[in-house]
Amino acid sequence: MVTTKLIPRTPEAVEPPLLIKSILAQSLRYEPQREIIYRDLFRMNYVEFNKRVRRLANMLTGLGIAPGDTVAVLDWDSHRYLECFFGVTSMGAVLHTVNVRLSPAQILYTMNHAQDKVVLIHEDFLPILTAIKDQLTTVEKYVILYDKVYTDLNAVGQVPAGFSCEYEAALRDESDEYDFPDFDENTWATTFYTTGTTGNPKGVYFSHRQLFMHTMGLSTFVCGYQAVPFSSTADVYMPITPMFHVHAWGFPFLATLLSAKQVYPGRYEPEVLLKLLLSEGVTLSHCVPTILTMLVNSPVAKQVDLSRWKVIIGGSALTKGLAKAALELGIQVYQGYGMSETAPIMALTQLNDTERPLPIDEQVDYRTRAGRVAPFVDIRLMDDDGNFVPHDGHSLGEVVARGYWMTQGYYEDPERGADLWKGGWLHTGDVASVTPDNWLIIADRTKDVVKTGGEWVSSLDIENLLSQIDGVAETAVVGLPDERWGERPHALVVLKPGTDLTADSIRQMLRDRIEADHLNKWYLPDRILFVAEIPKTSVGKIDKKRIRTDMKDQILNT
Amino acid sequence: MVTTKLIPRTPEAVEPPLLIKSILAQSLRYEPQREIIYRDLFRMNYVEFNKRVRRLANMLTGLGIAPGDTVAVLDWDSHRYLECFFGVTSMGAVLHTVNVRLSPAQILYTMNHAQDKVVLIHEDFLPILTAIKDQLTTVEKYVILYDKVYTDLNAVGQVPAGFSCEYEAALRDESDEYDFPDFDENTWATTFYTTGTTGNPKGVYFSHRQLFMHTMGLSTFVCGYQAVPFSSTADVYMPITPMFHVHAWGFPFLATLLSAKQVYPGRYEPEVLLKLLLSEGVTLSHCVPTILTMLVNSPVAKQVDLSRWKVIIGGSALTKGLAKAALELGIQVYQGYGMSETAPIMALTQLNDTERPLPIDEQVDYRTRAGRVAPFVDIRLMDDDGNFVPHDGHSLGEVVARGYWMTQGYYEDPERGADLWKGGWLHTGDVASVTPDNWLIIADRTKDVVKTGGEWVSSLDIENLLSQIDGVAETAVVGLPDERWGERPHALVVLKPGTDLTADSIRQMLRDRIEADHLNKWYLPDRILFVAEIPKTSVGKIDKKRIRTDMKDQILNT
Repeated sequence: MVTTKLIPRTPEAVEPPLLIKSILAQSLRYEPQREIIYRDLFRMNYVEFNKRVRRLANMLTGLGIAPGDTVAVLDWDSHRYLECFFGVTSMGAVLHTVNVRLSPAQILYTMNHAQDKVVLIHEDFLPILTAIKDQLTTVEKYVILYDKVYTDLNAVGQVPAGFSCEYEAALRDESDEYDFPDFDENTWATTFYTTGTTGNPKGVYFSHRQLFMHTMGLSTFVCGYQAVPFSSTADVYMPITPMFHVHAWGFPFLATLLSAKQVYPGRYEPEVLLKLLLSEGVTLSHCVPTILTMLVNSPVAKQVDLSRWKVIIGGSALTKGLAKAALELGIQVYQGYGMSETAPIMALTQLNDTERPLPIDEQVDYRTRAGRVAPFVDIRLMDDDGNFVPHDGHSLGEVVARGYWMTQGYYEDPERGADLWKGGWLHTGDVASVTPDNWLIIADRTKDVVKTGGEWVSSLDIENLLSQIDGVAETAVVGLPDERWGERPHALVVLKPGTDLTADSIRQMLRDRIEADHLNKWYLPDRILFVAEIPKTSVGKIDKKRIRTDMKDQILNT
Repeated sequence: MVTTKLIPRTPEAVEPPLLIKSILAQSLRYEPQREIIYRDLFRMNYVEFNKRVRRLANMLTGLGIAPGDTVAVLDWDSHRYLECFFGVTSMGAVLHTVNVRLSPAQILYTMNHAQDKVVLIHEDFLPILTAIKDQLTTVEKYVILYDKVYTDLNAVGQVPAGFSCEYEAALRDESDEYDFPDFDENTWATTFYTTGTTGNPKGVYFSHRQLFMHTMGLSTFVCGYQAVPFSSTADVYMPITPMFHVHAWGFPFLATLLSAKQVYPGRYEPEVLLKLLLSEGVTLSHCVPTILTMLVNSPVAKQVDLSRWKVIIGGSALTKGLAKAALELGIQVYQGYGMSETAPIMALTQLNDTERPLPIDEQVDYRTRAGRVAPFVDIRLMDDDGNFVPHDGHSLGEVVARGYWMTQGYYEDPERGADLWKGGWLHTGDVASVTPDNWLIIADRTKDVVKTGGEWVSSLDIENLLSQIDGVAETAVVGLPDERWGERPHALVVLKPGTDLTADSIRQMLRDRIEADHLNKWYLPDRILFVAEIPKTSVGKIDKKRIRTDMKDQILNT
């Protein structure tokens, strides 16, 4: 850091910190009558919302929460969750958005590790709680969240044994006055856990300043650059990526800043989603490809007008087939790229002046890329020696990043935190190229890329080539050690029944294709092993780690 | 400040400071081919612009500028000025945007006070320099800015005696590589001087963080809330408020962030402005009412299509007459409110969901208000005892503010700085009301408001009532001390020739009007003094200070 001249300050002068309460305050200024909706159960405007956020802060204070304490939430996407996004953080407490998809044992680990003090839990998750409650070491109070209170007044205030209160009754009984204090903008605001293939879940965390700046960056991209055009005047937002997953990509903060109409769908049920989409006029959502596939294939989709709906796909890659199917239904599909550690936005589809007028078929190529690198995110491609690789659209390197909203480590895990930030850059573990015009194209995971003769070859690229051969049902490509080249690619292939392909004929077809595509000859796998099935992980992903270890000898002896 | 838990940081983790270079970096990402234009003399795209900004930093380094040094610019609105906005600040130096409309003696004062080290000056201002050069105490080097270099290659590199170099030749000879360093975001970025009725000009100043956040706030307002709709994809920006005046309201930073097309008109000449407006397709400008009046009254205005032009008025109030005339030509007029001390945006016209569809006649009422309070600006109305006055649309109080972009004092003037920030709020000296739906309505200056019987009465409101009486040519209302009420209003009136109005008849008409408008009876001036002319200041404003002192006895003896 260079030494410069700082601005002098008059003793009484004030420059406020960047806090989440400042985002909340804007929601009352311009369109406070706009609504926040929960399924067909509950609706309120921003005036009411602001009051309820304050009632929540009073309720938590009553339950013993002070600045620095952690409040855990286990809920579906709801207005209650949004209230916690603002209320818990603005009182100076930490919001732990519990990933309810983890195993009970993992949930237990994360709740003890985060030192949760008060837990807000939807009744659907009581079985999980029952399984782990005895082993929770820091929790002092429980609050029950019921959906039935919105249709059955008798349910308001019903409390299971061991619980302190029911959410709606408690809110009703509290004052709607609460003066959110000023504090350091580097205050811990949220925390949640991310899992890898090994070890305990890792706790990532974000400060008020980081979430404030993420909101500003997202706003610049979607409002200013019209990446995924979003204007509070015309748009209605509904998340279909859980709020416990990186704050539903931070969009709830932006929608609240702009006092846009927001729709929270609770548990994701196809008919409820589609009904809300139409009845509330939803124009912007984000989801994983599975959800979009389900909606696109729904018989109803062809009978209704989805042409105002913009959907950002994340989590897994958007395929060209799905993109085209959605575009043909009038749905505008985009892709986003990010991870828990990056709060999450690192890239998002943004069609520039030349790309925007292109026909759908040509747009598909752009819309299925990871996206253009987002404003204020500094992305580089790094090789194994820590050198930067050029952004020429074909050179591969690991995606490393800096920016205003990157987790500064893993909670109480200095070793993995140091790995994440090795050399002062956040390592994503993804291998990609970046085009000179700022498109990020993900090629592989660092651990799966094949490093051969000083070049990085994407195992996914080779799999794509193989999958285009008639008769190939499924394939997996891994790199294995090679004395001369460091590593060489090898392929597992599952053949379709009745085909007469041989390893030699496949290699010949690949060789022709590699030549035609002007690819380098090192894309050609050394060995092709025919197998009955490809090893998969518990969540159905190809288990390349297991292939590289358990099947190594079998492959090399082919 | 409440004590909270801060986020822990891994030793190698990086969270970058909020710097102006980060705004500049975005301009290359999405639409680098868009252009920045200077009159009909020069045009470049953002790629070239980024290179020139770095050439400038190298040039200044060569002239001895180091972080913390001050660089002064005297220029019309130009691409060169924009280059200084980014280049001077991003190298860690301070940019002094010299107000060339001050007297040579005042300019001399500001340049010595700011400790300018290198001066960039347009040839038009050489006569000023000649007058003061001998008395400049800190300047070491001069750079000449010529317009003729864009049409006459022989002029490139011509240097007057005592000058170090000519801007274009110097840029041409420098490298376009310059690695702008990281430094503290509270680094002093810009400074300029504001004048009052007494004393020396006061130096206000802004940090990188403040200008960054001003850009974010403006972006949220105009891109997100569509206050004055601005999208880089559809809009072309041309300032008609000088860049030395609060960085042309900060719009050049936003336009660069969004890589919007920008047009710089040089010295304001009506025919040049109108020509650029049409030939470059300008859609967004800001100016003082005088300029808009001039353009609206130009015979050409009625022959051309100005329906894509949005104009924000500031500096003085937009009258309903001018607003209507502009709207009828298809020009969308808006009003902004701010001051040098507030960087400047505090309020801007923003029509909400209900107001936007209103007919022009009704919109005029909204568009002539000071505006809706801007995002992240915390405005309060304060009475003489430091208490807050309710935002009920009629109660008056002094406008005081806090926010992310307020000057933290006056340079080396602790006393006036302490006055500005008395009680921890920035005092604007303006008296206003705020409606419950966030409209700011300026009523008067604090020193001119009449404080009578515990109530604040706007002298401007009484002047407005008086000016509606047939036969009244001009009027000025001031408050004078009164034993019983503290102060009472008194009026000076200039009659139109041939009228037979008397003080009594005017008071009677006023009394009727006050009754009809349900105004309070304390609006009625105690005395009406007929005068041949109203005392004015050198810039043509009513000199109420002089009226209150020099004419006090004369008024009270009426």
